[in-house]
Amino acid sequence: MDEHQRLPGRLLKAPESFLAPGDIRTVHAQAAQGRRDFIRQAFAAASAAVAAPVALAQAKALPKDGDPAILELPPHSTGLGQAVATDGYGKPSKYEANVQRRQSPGLTQTRQASVSFAPLQSLFGIVTPSGLHFERHHQGWWDVDPTRHRLMVNGSDARMLKTPKVFTMDELMRLPSVSRFHFIECGANTGMEWGNVAVPTCQYTHGMLSCSEFTGVPLRTLLDMCGADWKRGRFVLAEGADGSSMTRTIPLSLIESGEVLVAYGQNGEMLRPEQGYPLRLVVPGVQGVSWVKYLRRIELGDQPYGSKDETIHYVDLLPGGQHRQYSSIQEVKSVVTTPSGGQVLLERGFYNVSGLAWSGRGKVKRVDVSVDGGRNWRQARLEQPVMSKCLTRFNIDWVWNGEPALVQSRATDDSGHVQPTSAQLRAVRGTRSIYHNNSIQTWLVNANGEVANVQLS
Amino acid sequence: MDEHQRLPGRLLKAPESFLAPGDIRTVHAQAAQGRRDFIRQAFAAASAAVAAPVALAQAKALPKDGDPAILELPPHSTGLGQAVATDGYGKPSKYEANVQRRQSPGLTQTRQASVSFAPLQSLFGIVTPSGLHFERHHQGWWDVDPTRHRLMVNGSDARMLKTPKVFTMDELMRLPSVSRFHFIECGANTGMEWGNVAVPTCQYTHGMLSCSEFTGVPLRTLLDMCGADWKRGRFVLAEGADGSSMTRTIPLSLIESGEVLVAYGQNGEMLRPEQGYPLRLVVPGVQGVSWVKYLRRIELGDQPYGSKDETIHYVDLLPGGQHRQYSSIQEVKSVVTTPSGGQVLLERGFYNVSGLAWSGRGKVKRVDVSVDGGRNWRQARLEQPVMSKCLTRFNIDWVWNGEPALVQSRATDDSGHVQPTSAQLRAVRGTRSIYHNNSIQTWLVNANGEVANVQLS
Repeated sequence: MDEHQRLPGRLLKAPESFLAPGDIRTVHAQAAQGRRDFIRQAFAAASAAVAAPVALAQAKALPKDGDPAILELPPHSTGLGQAVATDGYGKPSKYEANVQRRQSPGLTQTRQASVSFAPLQSLFGIVTPSGLHFERHHQGWWDVDPTRHRLMVNGSDARMLKTPKVFTMDELMRLPSVSRFHFIECGANTGMEWGNVAVPTCQYTHGMLSCSEFTGVPLRTLLDMCGADWKRGRFVLAEGADGSSMTRTIPLSLIESGEVLVAYGQNGEMLRPEQGYPLRLVVPGVQGVSWVKYLRRIELGDQPYGSKDETIHYVDLLPGGQHRQYSSIQEVKSVVTTPSGGQVLLERGFYNVSGLAWSGRGKVKRVDVSVDGGRNWRQARLEQPVMSKCLTRFNIDWVWNGEPALVQSRATDDSGHVQPTSAQLRAVRGTRSIYHNNSIQTWLVNANGEVANVQLS
Repeated sequence: MDEHQRLPGRLLKAPESFLAPGDIRTVHAQAAQGRRDFIRQAFAAASAAVAAPVALAQAKALPKDGDPAILELPPHSTGLGQAVATDGYGKPSKYEANVQRRQSPGLTQTRQASVSFAPLQSLFGIVTPSGLHFERHHQGWWDVDPTRHRLMVNGSDARMLKTPKVFTMDELMRLPSVSRFHFIECGANTGMEWGNVAVPTCQYTHGMLSCSEFTGVPLRTLLDMCGADWKRGRFVLAEGADGSSMTRTIPLSLIESGEVLVAYGQNGEMLRPEQGYPLRLVVPGVQGVSWVKYLRRIELGDQPYGSKDETIHYVDLLPGGQHRQYSSIQEVKSVVTTPSGGQVLLERGFYNVSGLAWSGRGKVKRVDVSVDGGRNWRQARLEQPVMSKCLTRFNIDWVWNGEPALVQSRATDDSGHVQPTSAQLRAVRGTRSIYHNNSIQTWLVNANGEVANVQLS
């Protein structure tokens, strides 16, 4: 099986059924009848252009009573299985071995300053399993000893913050904690698409995106404990302990709301080493680089710090040679993950079109889906709960008639922002940026069922 | 480190700080000052019986400019770290190696028909990492080939269901899907507590409990596709493919609401083998045994099936020798996970008391916490989102004055049910049952800080 195995929407060649291995009779007529009833319910509002629904299921006749096929049970129905865990920490099925984070070869010079992308095309719902969370390192990852790790909170001068402190992990974990679901997206996600480079799969176009339940202490609490001057302070510097000397400026306005967390928990357990174990900053709605990993220091000041990672890197090159700085909010965005580039639809008929939507400004309000390159749109169903600055899963029914189709999704958030087309975004930002490409993604479903990444001019 | 390492609320012995290894000056006076401000905010409504707050943090003086300690950086601040994933699937930190599922030795005769418990005392938020999800097997677990797995849907007679069908996994994954967060709890969770056996830790008292985001097809959809007679049908039989021949009766009333799912996704990825890969039933609010794993057949009928696992097993023995049958709903329940049995509070002062609450009847409405064995209660904060038939995380501030304390939590759900005391529950159900013990848990914090499981009469 290739790397795109276990893709929803990909029909594998039908294997023999263990229920009736020899003489299965296909009952297309019955299936089509059942199918029509079902389609009628599901597609009350569907486009009239859709051809008559094709039978979905290769439904099989049931074996008759006394048929020896019934007795041909597989080993797992007759034997003793494996015991409860001995190593105590479970793993995915061996049949899912190709669902992996993947590095994009050649994207960076070394594997320590690199990216591995989350396999969005194989994921469900909104939670990203921590083992498949995307990685972005500037100088490699470390497994830092939590008993030796410290967080210092200080001010840029003595009046800014009354009592600087150094916290151990145990001290932080005794403080009032909160748990919240948020997405994290690298500012450079979908960056290759600015240059009209058609990256082949959803994993490589949009895979610097993940979503977790984070647990930690609001940074506001720590600043309060240290006697921060909330009138003089305007910005915070967050500093990581790894060799990349990552430092980022965070506006105090984000912190005052209580949203910014000093987090140790992710999806129920401690942060993973690649994600900054034992401590990282969580800055909901803001690009991933500001979620400083291996967090060791917070400094309160009254002006932006202009660090290397916000002056030389992570700036948006505009037409005319100027650049946008401190453009940190991840604007409203969405992507269809099924069907998506690299997948194959092996037959016409019914498909569940599924994808993800998110906004750094709040909640996703609606998602519309087009299968004709944006001429007609239908509103998708949003899975609950829809949370602020969090991924939202959308689903919509589609009957593919076998002709080429251009599949798109367009998200709108509760601040009123609408995801732009690629042409709209380029008219303002040009084509030379790396960061903050939130334009509508187009997947071309070819007549042979192969799905490809295309850009509409 | 023992198995309870990385317990929130456990203070490890203070290691040397890498920020100032030699000459750290403790500034208790400053910390106490900062602490009082903080405590005043956090404890506006706290009990007047609480002694004067003790300084929380062993706050350290900062190194002075030019202090050579500043330059003594650890290796991870100066070197090149590890590269992005080569195996493509991440693991927890080596420092978390003792956060494991654990089997209770001697609880069952074989490790194939056994339980491993989730380490609730080390978990955060509501999502259980799939690698730490509790296990309960009746004949061991299997890694079933998804390309060969089938789901049959049939009726108990020809009129019950018009068109029986056999579905492949690919066919199921093309149907309209939904994603929802739900808890799953074994009906026997906390079963040892009926007999007044004081199990030592939260992992072993309450660890047959986990919570995930599930993705799948509503069973209602499949029954619709097969032409189910919703007037004649009253119950469904769900049958698993493993050797335990697990079969359970599910009332059609639960299925009609659309809540019951035929699920393939869990926490973003495919189900884990121990959890029924590639297909399991999800029956929100109902005990785990009904969430049939390796699901291979659904039969629609008009009466309960009285299978071995609902007549001989999973019945509740009552005083007088009668038993309750089909007692499937998991009633409102909660447990404090920090501090909990086996943990140690190494000093007096501030602690974040944290725990989980849930109800098989709907949403958790409120959780109250007592530190004096139920004489006085304070209302805890509920983390968002609060979802139906899902775990809810609660937190509340507590200043431990160093005297023995009896820590309890009491949940109320939106159907009006209140978690009973152990005495109240035993007055009705006796002490000889195994199942459905949802009574209030009591943890004794001893004067030396050690936390133990106790039962109040």
